[in-house]
Amino acid sequence: MAILSVGYQGERGAYSEQAARLFFRGKARLVPYAQFSEVFRHASKGGAHFSVIPIENSLFGSVHENYDHLIRSKLSIVGEIKLKIQHQLMASRGTTLKEIRTVYSHPQALGQCQEFLRSLKRVETRAFYDTAGAAKMLARENLRDAAAIASEQAAKTYGLKILKRNIEDNHHNFTRFLVLSTRPIKPKLHPKTSLVFSVRDVPGALFKALAVFALRDINLHKIESRPLVGRPWEYLFYLDISGCPGDPIVRQAVSHLREFCTFLRILGSYEAGKTR
Amino acid sequence: MAILSVGYQGERGAYSEQAARLFFRGKARLVPYAQFSEVFRHASKGGAHFSVIPIENSLFGSVHENYDHLIRSKLSIVGEIKLKIQHQLMASRGTTLKEIRTVYSHPQALGQCQEFLRSLKRVETRAFYDTAGAAKMLARENLRDAAAIASEQAAKTYGLKILKRNIEDNHHNFTRFLVLSTRPIKPKLHPKTSLVFSVRDVPGALFKALAVFALRDINLHKIESRPLVGRPWEYLFYLDISGCPGDPIVRQAVSHLREFCTFLRILGSYEAGKTR
Repeated sequence: MAILSVGYQGERGAYSEQAARLFFRGKARLVPYAQFSEVFRHASKGGAHFSVIPIENSLFGSVHENYDHLIRSKLSIVGEIKLKIQHQLMASRGTTLKEIRTVYSHPQALGQCQEFLRSLKRVETRAFYDTAGAAKMLARENLRDAAAIASEQAAKTYGLKILKRNIEDNHHNFTRFLVLSTRPIKPKLHPKTSLVFSVRDVPGALFKALAVFALRDINLHKIESRPLVGRPWEYLFYLDISGCPGDPIVRQAVSHLREFCTFLRILGSYEAGKTR
Repeated sequence: MAILSVGYQGERGAYSEQAARLFFRGKARLVPYAQFSEVFRHASKGGAHFSVIPIENSLFGSVHENYDHLIRSKLSIVGEIKLKIQHQLMASRGTTLKEIRTVYSHPQALGQCQEFLRSLKRVETRAFYDTAGAAKMLARENLRDAAAIASEQAAKTYGLKILKRNIEDNHHNFTRFLVLSTRPIKPKLHPKTSLVFSVRDVPGALFKALAVFALRDINLHKIESRPLVGRPWEYLFYLDISGCPGDPIVRQAVSHLREFCTFLRILGSYEAGKTR
C-alpha cells in the first residue's frame, strides 16, 4: 500500500504536525505548507491524501479563515482530533535560562505565555511566523542568548533543549483539528456532521433552522453566528450535530433545513475525536 | 458637571481610545490601562465612570477574555460602537518607505497586514504589546530605519508621519466595542440585550432556550456556543437579542429562560451601535 501523505500548515514540529502524527499514528508522510491556502489548494488538486487544519481553540475561538477555505473548497471533513496545547521554552544546548535575552515565537503563543514571560527579567519577545519556525531558526543560527516557544515535537525535530515545560498561562488550552479529504466518509462510531448555512434575517429564522434538528432529537454540539461583513443583518451559522446524513433522520433534517436556507453546505461527517 | 472618565486597554492612540473618543464625542477624559483586567478592576471600584472594551472582531471572532471579565464583574453593558479597523504604516518625519528595515506592531495587526509586509523587501517584523505602544516607542527612541503599524490616532498622538494608509489585507475588518458602567441603563432607541447562559447538555436544550425568545417574536443578533474547557459537553452560550428587560415580553422571556438554565447572566441593555 502506498504511504498516505498528509498536508498541514507550519514548519516541521508545528502543533498541526503533532495532531496529524497522533491522528495517523505515525503512518503517514507529513507535508508542511507555509499558508493554509496552500494546504487547501494542494489537497484539492489531489496533491495530498489528507490535510489536518486547526478549526477552533478553547481560548481564541473559531479559525474563521479555515471555515472560509472549507466553504470554498471541495474537501470534506473526515476526522477530528483535540490537542492539549502545551508550550515549551527551548534553546540551543548549553544555553541556560538566565542567559536568555530574546524569546521568539508565533504572536499567539507569546500571548499565551505572557505571565511566564513577564517573570523573566530583561527579556524581549519577537514575533515569528510560526512556533516551530522560531525553533528551526534558533537551531540553524545557533543563537546563544535566545529561546523559542514551541511544541515538544519542535524541540525534538530541531535538537533543542527544553528549559521550562508547559509555560502556558492557561492550562485549559485545547485546539480542535479537522482532518480533510477529497473523499467524504461514512463514520461508524460516534458520528458528527458539520454544516454551514445562512438564513434570511427574519425573527425566528434561526429558531426554525434549529427546530429541524430538535424536533428529530438530533443533538447540537456547536453553534456560532458570524456576521457577514459588508452585508449587515446577514449571518453565516456554523453548526455541528450528532449523526450523519447516512441516518434517515439526519438526511431528512438537512433536506428540511434546505427549504428555508439561503445557503447551505455540509462540510462533512466524521467520528467525534478524542482529546490527546 | 464633572468630566466623565473612561478607561480603556492600551497606550494612548489605541483603537479602543479611538472608539471611546467617537462614542463620547471627545467629551471625556480617557484613561489608558495596560491590561483588560485592570480596566475591569478600576471600573468596578468606581475608578472610571465608563470603560470601552473590544468584544468581537469580524475576522477573529469573539474576545473570550472580555466575556470572562464581564461575567465575573458587576459592570453592565450600556453602549456599543463598531469601528472599521484601518491600519497605517507610520515612521518618524524624514524616514522614507525605502529606509524601513523593521516594522513594530501588535502581533494581530502584523498578521492583518501580512500581504503588505511581504511586498516590502528586506523588512523584519517585531511584535509589540500594543499597536499604539509601538508608535510611542518609535517616536521616543526616534528610530530612523523603523516603522510602526497603528491607528491614525496614534500617528497624531506621537507626531509620526503616515507612510502608507490602510495597509490591512482585508478591508472588511470591523471591531465591535462595548461601553461598560457600574450603573445599568434603559435604552430608548433600538435596544439590544446581551446574555450569557448555560444549559444542561440534553438533546434540544438549546432549542428550548431559543424558543423562549422565538415564541415571543424576539429577534436574535448573535449566538455562539463556547465549550467549557475541563467540562466536556458543557457549553456557555453568548446571546444578543433585540429589546431589553424593560419590555414585558423580554422580561418574561428571560424569566422563562431561567427556569431551565444552569447559569444565566444579563450583561446589559444598550442602544444598538453604529459603524464608524
